[in-house]
Amino acid sequence: METHPYSPKDLNLPGFVPNSMSQMTILGIFGAGSIIVFSLALILPGWFSKPTKTERLLICWWTFTGLIHMIIEGYFVFSPAFYKDKKGCYLAEIWKEYSKGDSRYAGRDSAVIAVEGIAAVLEGPASILAAYAVATCKPYSDVLQLTISLGQLYGCLVYYITAILEGDNFAASPYFYYAYYVGANASWIVIPALISSRSWKRICQSFKAQDKSKSKTQ
Amino acid sequence: METHPYSPKDLNLPGFVPNSMSQMTILGIFGAGSIIVFSLALILPGWFSKPTKTERLLICWWTFTGLIHMIIEGYFVFSPAFYKDKKGCYLAEIWKEYSKGDSRYAGRDSAVIAVEGIAAVLEGPASILAAYAVATCKPYSDVLQLTISLGQLYGCLVYYITAILEGDNFAASPYFYYAYYVGANASWIVIPALISSRSWKRICQSFKAQDKSKSKTQ
Repeated sequence: METHPYSPKDLNLPGFVPNSMSQMTILGIFGAGSIIVFSLALILPGWFSKPTKTERLLICWWTFTGLIHMIIEGYFVFSPAFYKDKKGCYLAEIWKEYSKGDSRYAGRDSAVIAVEGIAAVLEGPASILAAYAVATCKPYSDVLQLTISLGQLYGCLVYYITAILEGDNFAASPYFYYAYYVGANASWIVIPALISSRSWKRICQSFKAQDKSKSKTQ
Repeated sequence: METHPYSPKDLNLPGFVPNSMSQMTILGIFGAGSIIVFSLALILPGWFSKPTKTERLLICWWTFTGLIHMIIEGYFVFSPAFYKDKKGCYLAEIWKEYSKGDSRYAGRDSAVIAVEGIAAVLEGPASILAAYAVATCKPYSDVLQLTISLGQLYGCLVYYITAILEGDNFAASPYFYYAYYVGANASWIVIPALISSRSWKRICQSFKAQDKSKSKTQ
């Protein structure tokens, strides 16, 4: 059995190759990439329309989360042998690092693959569509944003419930538990909760307005 | 190791007690209960308001699925030892029988418990609220129906994806595979797909109508 830095220690990962990049390099590249994506998503839509502040933030979020779902999570779903990667592929490095917070990624836990597969294949492209829908004020903008946000929240529920049921012992240390397993996922609970609540209210308001205009014309 | 009728044969269920009711009795009680619930849900709302045909069917569905989520699935989630039941408890009998189509129920698979837990605790009460919302034409009726239906569809995705990833060998025979694992769940794919598509369209129409009335008043 190869040695690996993950918990539980008896997790069998034949052919495991340790990270070739440092934690700082991996997080630095992620941070720099995120800043570029956010900046472009903040500036570009202003050239074509006049989005409000909230709309600008929503476009940023949907572009950011859509790219993460498709590229980073998509790589994980379709690369079962990422922990054997010897070439220093950046996406493999990310998942080798994140597995320190949740070894179920290296261990190919089926609930994790199911949640990540749905995120990569369905929620990723839908998020990019949501960014476009917000930028162009489509009538389906709120219902699409609600749909994706609910999917992200449902995914987080399955992700945490299955971990707890299986003993919640998948982090290499309390640091990785809180920084990666809790911290890195927190945005995908807080932001989808805010967006689904906003879209829910806007949808209800639209129906109320429709009822009012109906009763006026009668 | 006790013998049990489930697949795979090496599934360890210490203290397993076989079904005391026959398949016909279990399904007969379920069928009779469903007919009573459907009949009441079809007739009662007509005493208080005048629901359309579609609304009547929706009220039936939401009452039916809400009670199943809360009572049948709720029992499963909170009864880890149902397969040891000796008293012939009907709810234990149901799950002993259904486990012939998917032994992950008797085996307490964590993805199955997560999906069933979300159904029992969140989707169940929300479905009863949806029946009430349809009956009383609440402005949140469509967004609530969409939310629950998407949850049911997401749950089915996780349910089937995790089964496939783990080898899809949890049915005692092809008969139980198609009758229970595929057949019994089919309604929770087809009906939520129909309802979410209907609610999605109605929400979009409401936003379109709002846009129109705004442009008229300007």
